Amino acid sequence: MKMVPKLGLADVRVMVAAAEREAKRIGVDMDIAVCDDGGNLLMFVRMDEARVSSIQIAIDKAFTAACARRSTRDYAASAAPGQPAFGIHASHQGRFAIFPGGLPISVGGHVVGGIGCSSGHPDQDEAVAWAGLNALAAVAP
Amino acid sequence: MKMVPKLGLADVRVMVAAAEREAKRIGVDMDIAVCDDGGNLLMFVRMDEARVSSIQIAIDKAFTAACARRSTRDYAASAAPGQPAFGIHASHQGRFAIFPGGLPISVGGHVVGGIGCSSGHPDQDEAVAWAGLNALAAVAP
Amino acid sequence: MKMVPKLGLADVRVMVAAAEREAKRIGVDMDIAVCDDGGNLLMFVRMDEARVSSIQIAIDKAFTAACARRSTRDYAASAAPGQPAFGIHASHQGRFAIFPGGLPISVGGHVVGGIGCSSGHPDQDEAVAWAGLNALAAVAP
Amino acid sequence: MKMVPKLGLADVRVMVAAAEREAKRIGVDMDIAVCDDGGNLLMFVRMDEARVSSIQIAIDKAFTAACARRSTRDYAASAAPGQPAFGIHASHQGRFAIFPGGLPISVGGHVVGGIGCSSGHPDQDEAVAWAGLNALAAVAP
Repeated sequence: MKMVPKLGLADVRVMVAAAEREAKRIGVDMDIAVCDDGGNLLMFVRMDEARVSSIQIAIDKAFTAACARRSTRDYAASAAPGQPAFGIHASHQGRFAIFPGGLPISVGGHVVGGIGCSSGHPDQDEAVAWAGLNALAAVAP
Repeated sequence: MKMVPKLGLADVRVMVAAAEREAKRIGVDMDIAVCDDGGNLLMFVRMDEARVSSIQIAIDKAFTAACARRSTRDYAASAAPGQPAFGIHASHQGRFAIFPGGLPISVGGHVVGGIGCSSGHPDQDEAVAWAGLNALAAVAP
Repeated sequence: MKMVPKLGLADVRVMVAAAEREAKRIGVDMDIAVCDDGGNLLMFVRMDEARVSSIQIAIDKAFTAACARRSTRDYAASAAPGQPAFGIHASHQGRFAIFPGGLPISVGGHVVGGIGCSSGHPDQDEAVAWAGLNALAAVAP
Repeated sequence: MKMVPKLGLADVRVMVAAAEREAKRIGVDMDIAVCDDGGNLLMFVRMDEARVSSIQIAIDKAFTAACARRSTRDYAASAAPGQPAFGIHASHQGRFAIFPGGLPISVGGHVVGGIGCSSGHPDQDEAVAWAGLNALAAVAP
């Protein structure tokens, strides 16, 4: 039977801590979520000034990136009106996120989860998610 | 631990009464909702001719404005097709309102809740919500 | 075509004010909801110390009493394990309330809505709902 | 306007860390959730061997304890068949938890949130939640 890598809580903490540091550095408190390859939540942190409405959105971005194995930014194009995936944002009871801030987490070519950030401009959200990915790559290359 | 202001029912009544008066003045019966900073309902009034389909929309506008800490009007631009937040209206099982009529309620620089109005043209809805905000500012500046 | 009575906001205010007075008299702040004969919300008030988890329950009690045209207390017996309606509490996505505190509002033999109260012991909730019904009967006999 | 205390992320981390330590001590990996007084998530951690099905249950226990301002254990009695609150577990789309493991977080007489733990026997879940409460009391008495 095939062996696949699996995120542990220690890995996830590295990602979340790095994302928090980046959020602090740019001055935007964020909601930060990491889920596994099944879209199930591993860790969530709400920074003090992060938006309440971004809790679910951060979790949804992590879910979408992990389960679709793509950056949520990629869907901005394909899910736009007139494009092939238009309407997909309403799937999963509205949990399918199609704006930047959700990134798949890959280890050795396998998607092992997703990280989602929300509360700032979508470009900021994505930069904070990248900080999490980069930190994991530094410890689990 | 940080201390934050909290809306009481007496404050909320002032807002709802002023919103009702403004709705009557412009001749459009409305659904009027006020929620706290966690998006939980504090008070709701359906004026006699307000729309049944606007009950949930008024509540959703209050929820969105409180939890995103922005006027729902602001999302009309950023959530339009081709814009960074397109698709966000489907989040929270469709409860994220992206048209005018929901305003955050701020006291001393803190968002303590949201007011949402619905049944008229979105500009009318927002004018009625403003009447509520202004009445609160007059008693709790 | 048949004519049916319809609750106006003025009637609803009489009920909610009386329910609030009774809640204050017994010293238990409550969530108080009134809906119309279609189960759609007419008015809601959260007293200052009422429970956040009782917001939805008060609304659900009003909905159930109005639409089933029975006191929610009546379902405690028929929806008990082994009884004919066991399981009905899970219908309507869990909105069907089967414990005391929701009463149908009748005018001239017609059910025109429901009132639901929550935050205390179910017997207290029901007493507060009765105060609302009695106040309406005094002005619209 | 009334001022109330509000949990910050630093407080929440103290609670979650203590809950994790207690879970390790008893040898049962847990899902641990903390939410604010509006039932909105502040932090969530899934320990490596915690159950996937307990993610939502831990979050629901935190939600229920915070919003009902009672231990979820208290509902085991009042929500049993034949008791006054039977059926309440189906409210809030099934999110109302009526078994041990969710505790309200009180500071200076105010409920500021809830902590919920799940994956073990309900008594174990509750013991781990208590470890979180005790740790907060030690730093914010």
